[in-house]
Amino acid sequence: MIRVGIVGGTGYTGSELLRILAGHPRVSLAAITSRGEAGQTVADLFPHLRGRVDLKFSEPDVGLLGECDLVFFATPNGTAMKMAPDLLERGAKVIDLAADFRLKDPAIWNRWYQMPHACPELLAEAVYGLPEVNRAAIREARLVANPGCYPTAVTLGFLPLLEQGWIDPGWLVADAKSGVSGAGRKASVGMLMAEVGESFKAYAVAGHRHQPEIFQNLSGVAGPGLRLTFVPHLLPMIRGIEATLYARLQGPDLDLQSAYEARYGAEPFVDVMPAGSHPETRSVRGCNSCRIAVAEPLGEGIVVVQSVIDNLVKGAAGQAVQNMNLMFGLDETEALGALALLP
Amino acid sequence: MIRVGIVGGTGYTGSELLRILAGHPRVSLAAITSRGEAGQTVADLFPHLRGRVDLKFSEPDVGLLGECDLVFFATPNGTAMKMAPDLLERGAKVIDLAADFRLKDPAIWNRWYQMPHACPELLAEAVYGLPEVNRAAIREARLVANPGCYPTAVTLGFLPLLEQGWIDPGWLVADAKSGVSGAGRKASVGMLMAEVGESFKAYAVAGHRHQPEIFQNLSGVAGPGLRLTFVPHLLPMIRGIEATLYARLQGPDLDLQSAYEARYGAEPFVDVMPAGSHPETRSVRGCNSCRIAVAEPLGEGIVVVQSVIDNLVKGAAGQAVQNMNLMFGLDETEALGALALLP
Amino acid sequence: MIRVGIVGGTGYTGSELLRILAGHPRVSLAAITSRGEAGQTVADLFPHLRGRVDLKFSEPDVGLLGECDLVFFATPNGTAMKMAPDLLERGAKVIDLAADFRLKDPAIWNRWYQMPHACPELLAEAVYGLPEVNRAAIREARLVANPGCYPTAVTLGFLPLLEQGWIDPGWLVADAKSGVSGAGRKASVGMLMAEVGESFKAYAVAGHRHQPEIFQNLSGVAGPGLRLTFVPHLLPMIRGIEATLYARLQGPDLDLQSAYEARYGAEPFVDVMPAGSHPETRSVRGCNSCRIAVAEPLGEGIVVVQSVIDNLVKGAAGQAVQNMNLMFGLDETEALGALALLP
Amino acid sequence: MIRVGIVGGTGYTGSELLRILAGHPRVSLAAITSRGEAGQTVADLFPHLRGRVDLKFSEPDVGLLGECDLVFFATPNGTAMKMAPDLLERGAKVIDLAADFRLKDPAIWNRWYQMPHACPELLAEAVYGLPEVNRAAIREARLVANPGCYPTAVTLGFLPLLEQGWIDPGWLVADAKSGVSGAGRKASVGMLMAEVGESFKAYAVAGHRHQPEIFQNLSGVAGPGLRLTFVPHLLPMIRGIEATLYARLQGPDLDLQSAYEARYGAEPFVDVMPAGSHPETRSVRGCNSCRIAVAEPLGEGIVVVQSVIDNLVKGAAGQAVQNMNLMFGLDETEALGALALLP
Repeated sequence: MIRVGIVGGTGYTGSELLRILAGHPRVSLAAITSRGEAGQTVADLFPHLRGRVDLKFSEPDVGLLGECDLVFFATPNGTAMKMAPDLLERGAKVIDLAADFRLKDPAIWNRWYQMPHACPELLAEAVYGLPEVNRAAIREARLVANPGCYPTAVTLGFLPLLEQGWIDPGWLVADAKSGVSGAGRKASVGMLMAEVGESFKAYAVAGHRHQPEIFQNLSGVAGPGLRLTFVPHLLPMIRGIEATLYARLQGPDLDLQSAYEARYGAEPFVDVMPAGSHPETRSVRGCNSCRIAVAEPLGEGIVVVQSVIDNLVKGAAGQAVQNMNLMFGLDETEALGALALLP
Repeated sequence: MIRVGIVGGTGYTGSELLRILAGHPRVSLAAITSRGEAGQTVADLFPHLRGRVDLKFSEPDVGLLGECDLVFFATPNGTAMKMAPDLLERGAKVIDLAADFRLKDPAIWNRWYQMPHACPELLAEAVYGLPEVNRAAIREARLVANPGCYPTAVTLGFLPLLEQGWIDPGWLVADAKSGVSGAGRKASVGMLMAEVGESFKAYAVAGHRHQPEIFQNLSGVAGPGLRLTFVPHLLPMIRGIEATLYARLQGPDLDLQSAYEARYGAEPFVDVMPAGSHPETRSVRGCNSCRIAVAEPLGEGIVVVQSVIDNLVKGAAGQAVQNMNLMFGLDETEALGALALLP
Repeated sequence: MIRVGIVGGTGYTGSELLRILAGHPRVSLAAITSRGEAGQTVADLFPHLRGRVDLKFSEPDVGLLGECDLVFFATPNGTAMKMAPDLLERGAKVIDLAADFRLKDPAIWNRWYQMPHACPELLAEAVYGLPEVNRAAIREARLVANPGCYPTAVTLGFLPLLEQGWIDPGWLVADAKSGVSGAGRKASVGMLMAEVGESFKAYAVAGHRHQPEIFQNLSGVAGPGLRLTFVPHLLPMIRGIEATLYARLQGPDLDLQSAYEARYGAEPFVDVMPAGSHPETRSVRGCNSCRIAVAEPLGEGIVVVQSVIDNLVKGAAGQAVQNMNLMFGLDETEALGALALLP
Repeated sequence: MIRVGIVGGTGYTGSELLRILAGHPRVSLAAITSRGEAGQTVADLFPHLRGRVDLKFSEPDVGLLGECDLVFFATPNGTAMKMAPDLLERGAKVIDLAADFRLKDPAIWNRWYQMPHACPELLAEAVYGLPEVNRAAIREARLVANPGCYPTAVTLGFLPLLEQGWIDPGWLVADAKSGVSGAGRKASVGMLMAEVGESFKAYAVAGHRHQPEIFQNLSGVAGPGLRLTFVPHLLPMIRGIEATLYARLQGPDLDLQSAYEARYGAEPFVDVMPAGSHPETRSVRGCNSCRIAVAEPLGEGIVVVQSVIDNLVKGAAGQAVQNMNLMFGLDETEALGALALLP
């Protein structure tokens, strides 16, 4: 059994980790920490886990966590980078679901997250945990940076086009929409149901932290000269991300459908839908899949890609478990077989 | 492997059966029928089943269905009663998720469902599939009437009180609320999102078909003299039923909490929550549990029971699979271990 | 022009007052206060008021407010009672939308609101602002206690039955459901959309502060011996309250429909719907009406009343403006003519 | 008083016309027709109009309608073009809220709406009823084609940029999102709340009927060479459209904010929000405004415009009344002063 610790278990990514890991036959939950809720039973906070998760929240303790085989960080940005070096030294592997190890350049980290990086020496070693791109490296990794939710949907959507060199990298548009669970489980006026229900808006138009992460992912394929406009929006629903991607095709008669099917045919968690499809976020609600459709409307040379994920699963906790499975030599799909809950 | 057929697979109870049975290690899906969609791939209609359910919808055929070990009817009321006798004769067992075999008295059936019963001779044999009441009989049954969604929530809620004789049966009130999936997957103006979203109302105040079913259940325990006021309401959400039940206590100093815990302590799918709890429908979303809380507000002699289920799971397809497990001697919880999807 | 001040303008009742009063031809807005937002433009916080409300929030100042003809308190409980005596002395009239002056007995206030009353000497003078009951007194009042949202819906629903003496006052049940705006506009985890969307639950089953208020209202008609079970629930929507009321009829052949129509026929803001109706909350969204239907299901001697209001309008700001109109001798319906926004 | 008839009054645009016109001091409703509901009281179908609209639905009758000063068509596409010639000849003016008179080229109509045009000779005379573009012509018009909902939001969003010649017309992207009321009030499985609630998707990616309408609007300003990618999406909410628009700026140092403020400063129903704003659909819920924000994220030469309207008001019935006011020489804002209903 893999001994697992979770730091920061009171948010939505933490509770999703618990939900998924509670059904994992090779995992034993050793500790789940929360400064604010230490001493409280997990099932009191999350009644859907009653009878299946018996742990109590505990104070984060590096000694105890260091005895785990793997520690997940489901914490705010800036927490994992302070504890990870110590845990790695004690022999634990680390998967950070926050952004601490996603950006390779500490100056860019500093600019977007407004704090110096606590362990820039680990950034080169950290593996960006998108299995569809970095599977081999993840298998060998001690430290995995679990991708952001928007970056997962957008990167998987653009990837085949950039790998083929079929689109002009000079003007990529990603119009992305997320359910409210992406904002986390913390008190705020702005995310009250009375504020965000029955309404829709863009946000962070001037610049969102996932922009440099997506930029890094896509530039890694396309090389220099990439220009990306990324606009996130807030949906009046709980789970799900849809990204509609726009780019200019570099040539006529490109077989978009076949290229996507070839690229993702062997992927267990990317589903290229038939031509003409409109993937719905509910078709991945609670499951670890990314569903994608690609089209060229009216034959005008603009490609439109639709990409949907559950932001808490393939966009967070599910992908983290997928990475764990790879890091520990397990079947990549272990505990991730749940079908979407529809309707 | 148990060969299973599903008649009427294009509705929500049908698709939930597929979702749950796709994960059942002892079941092979032999046929799923739909007159309207015959020939179409199941995954085209239900994209969340892509890659996991390879069947096509077929015309209902008694010969083929009769070769199944078990046939589920996920059809409108009045369909199963026409085909069940033939199927039973061919050796298949039958679970009807509609109302055809729930009411013991064909006159009451006729009054509430406005059609004569096609096989009243089977009503005595049919077992009402509420395992918490009829477990032993279900194990032996050929024909199971799967309970209605409201009746499941209300019956489980009132049951311990009536069994103890602690409440006046002369005035029971059940104020029940259901998500819109309870109305099924059929075209209607009244269930458009623009009609039922962001609004709430009672319906069928003059009399709802689940009233006689609940009445039959409760009278079976309380005997004559029962009087039940049942008012259903429509919630602006998709899944979930909450029933708030009111009755007059027959004595002081009754240990309500202990009575509920004792009654349901061994039940795998009924969870009596701690005193003071307010069960949320989301705590059972997608899972087969009924969560219950009991209280006596302000010590005034009125008991208030809260009971929540997912109308499509414990209120329909999940309970049907629970019944199947019992009928075929399997572990009652097989394929029903999914935790609720929260948030 | 009536000079109006609003204390506590950053919540939903405050912004509703602004929305309604912006269209009132006899009102000039003199001041709107908020300690937290002092100096900020109202339209920055409430973009729907852009171009129509030019005020800035200011610190509450008794001197300035005392020069108003009328001061509305849209503040948390316990605020108005501290400022009202001073304002009344300066000649301003006061309408409190919170609970400070609703309960006549300061001991009951203390028990339910957990603070001593700051000016119990005003409780006798304060008029409970339910025009359908106290119209004449409101016209003469200096100090009006605007009713709570649940109490408005429940009281108007039970009133004709109690006035007629047609129901047993010994067991009244009010099963009430409210949209999330009833919880106000303040940061909290519990009211995040990810927590309350797509879910439903009862709350405060052990006792809610509106219970004694409703009790006082109904006892005022029924006399001693009243027993009321009141259970509020939280709806996954923004605006609207529905209350389903249950009581035992004291006799046969009561003409319920006619009694309600007679009682409310002259009321501009109570609409008795035709027999057999199911009033929807959306039919009063944004408007000052209470719509009511009454029925006796299955002829079993139990009366069921459905009562719907918009909790922010007839349940708060709209009723407050109705009271203002009465206090200042205006047409009671002035500025309250908006039709519901449906769908 | 202007005598008004409405053809097709049972949908959402029809009921919105009724809601708005019920408060118009210069309008008398003469007839509202519906083949399906003829004889039924309007208030039975639309309870929010109880007490304010006393009409019954009637069969459409050209004779009666021809006596009106103005006839609104709130009908499916293809209806108005059959009746308009006759009504115009009888002296009535006509505003069509459907698409019949929007496209100037009958061949393009035929291609997108799959039916020949019944009166192509009227297309040249018909005025496209976007007051911000065609105010003078609308004042003189007998026949107005009320714009589509998406075209209103997208056209107003792009207009200042194209008028200034500041963007490359060769690649415009409009990523638009609409609430479900845009699909109308007709029975369908696809628009059930259980199908579209808590989910999000693009639709009609291959080509939507509003694409040629927007294209015609923008080409009218930009001239030849325009290329527009328009992708509509379905939001899990009832009212509101948000369009996020992307284009390549043709030069540096363009004062976007000032250009928008100058273009729309005198417009009563277009509100250019301060720089850095994120307009929310709820800020225009139930009101006739279009709110717009413009930005150039990260200074990279791509302009992003956000434009929000209520699809049923500025996107349909409100704009139709605005056009009526212009056609009859009234104050353009008459009956359109309602503030948005927020929250």
